[in-house]
Amino acid sequence: MFSHNVMPELTDTDAMGHINHARIPVWFANARNPLFRFFTPELDIKNWPLILASITVNFHGQIYHACEIDIKTSVSKIGNSSFSVTQEAWQNCELVASGEAIMVHFDYASKVAIRIPDDIRANLQQHLEPQLTGSKL
Amino acid sequence: MFSHNVMPELTDTDAMGHINHARIPVWFANARNPLFRFFTPELDIKNWPLILASITVNFHGQIYHACEIDIKTSVSKIGNSSFSVTQEAWQNCELVASGEAIMVHFDYASKVAIRIPDDIRANLQQHLEPQLTGSKL
Amino acid sequence: MFSHNVMPELTDTDAMGHINHARIPVWFANARNPLFRFFTPELDIKNWPLILASITVNFHGQIYHACEIDIKTSVSKIGNSSFSVTQEAWQNCELVASGEAIMVHFDYASKVAIRIPDDIRANLQQHLEPQLTGSKL
Amino acid sequence: MFSHNVMPELTDTDAMGHINHARIPVWFANARNPLFRFFTPELDIKNWPLILASITVNFHGQIYHACEIDIKTSVSKIGNSSFSVTQEAWQNCELVASGEAIMVHFDYASKVAIRIPDDIRANLQQHLEPQLTGSKL
Repeated sequence: MFSHNVMPELTDTDAMGHINHARIPVWFANARNPLFRFFTPELDIKNWPLILASITVNFHGQIYHACEIDIKTSVSKIGNSSFSVTQEAWQNCELVASGEAIMVHFDYASKVAIRIPDDIRANLQQHLEPQLTGSKL
Repeated sequence: MFSHNVMPELTDTDAMGHINHARIPVWFANARNPLFRFFTPELDIKNWPLILASITVNFHGQIYHACEIDIKTSVSKIGNSSFSVTQEAWQNCELVASGEAIMVHFDYASKVAIRIPDDIRANLQQHLEPQLTGSKL
Repeated sequence: MFSHNVMPELTDTDAMGHINHARIPVWFANARNPLFRFFTPELDIKNWPLILASITVNFHGQIYHACEIDIKTSVSKIGNSSFSVTQEAWQNCELVASGEAIMVHFDYASKVAIRIPDDIRANLQQHLEPQLTGSKL
Repeated sequence: MFSHNVMPELTDTDAMGHINHARIPVWFANARNPLFRFFTPELDIKNWPLILASITVNFHGQIYHACEIDIKTSVSKIGNSSFSVTQEAWQNCELVASGEAIMVHFDYASKVAIRIPDDIRANLQQHLEPQLTGSKL
């Protein structure tokens, strides 16, 4: 599991007085960087190897500015070419948002999904929770 | 069904050269305004009557800048206090993203879900597709 | 002068209840598209011919959601390789923001400013207000 | 002088491959928080005591993702009710952006500028660079 801290700012709020919900997909994406680095250690945007298939975010409570959030990221499934990422956002010891993202290892040139290589697969598996290794997406 | 047009701008792109995925939840939220207006005709943020429970977005294809998107919004389920919204983003006659949002009629003061009043329910039902009226969320 | 309409959305507000100031530079950038098209008719991001040197935004009044803004864009100066753009945002017949952006015609490969070609210069001059033609930036 | 670190993320880039210029006003605003706290220690958005009069941002070089930025913030002028903030963004020991923001101590209820109290003024003066104390905005 990876941990990533974000400080929610006034510029992230909306008129309801809390953090706008659409900031969470941004923060969750940023928190997936350590997983992206298994595929591209330098986060090389010119040879980006992944495509996002879907995201789900569940909102459990209001999120406040000026109080740090801890985002926990783990792998929930590893398929042939795709994998699922489960994420949680905690603020003040409360779970405020959770979500899942499905990523596909992808060749943008030929526009086809490609198998996740074994060495990367091994890295992903070290962050697999719960033990769903081998489940088909 | 409601239709809402968005022009994707250079400021919405990311380094991969396409529209960043995190803009879609923003556009889908904006496109839900006609449904919000059933609850608060003036979009009165001081008495906002809804809370977002979850969003899901599926990404079907690359989204490009400088080519208008049409976002189609309909109601997919109406529960006691909650309802589901189904949305599709079309660009160049291609479905590029789809998603669902679950909204709850909510009293922020007492922090409880409240029943959707009959007049608002009738309005929502006019935009219900497919005919899932009465399904329990 | 070019005119560009923007609908400020709830997702553009902040906790003070108005549109967050940092949205204005985004909208002003989008409203400069007609000028960008003089340089790259298709807004071709792979051969982008301009670099932004500076922006200034003056905030004259609160900006509200759900009430359309009209952004007026004109050229205020044309130099050898650079030009200045003056912009105004109007809402409800009130000037709510104004600003200036300085753009430089730029070759990203060699990283040098290059002279604005005469045909593009002629196009820019048609949108020059006030009559400051030839002033040096 | 205050120092504030920001990690530019892929979600902050645009199609030109660098950080989109419109992120800088957001980061500069966030980096002004320590000054805001002189006026409202808890960053209390319900009694926000400041209004933004203008921002200027100068872009000195490309800003890259995945490489931390250090934002330096100091006070450049203190007037009767307003003050100016000078900011610099450094990445890889290079000045990549600089700017100024003019803030006004403001009563939103009566919509008038109000004098900066002496205790807050003293705090601001401790971060005044260069020594322009007393200059009129």
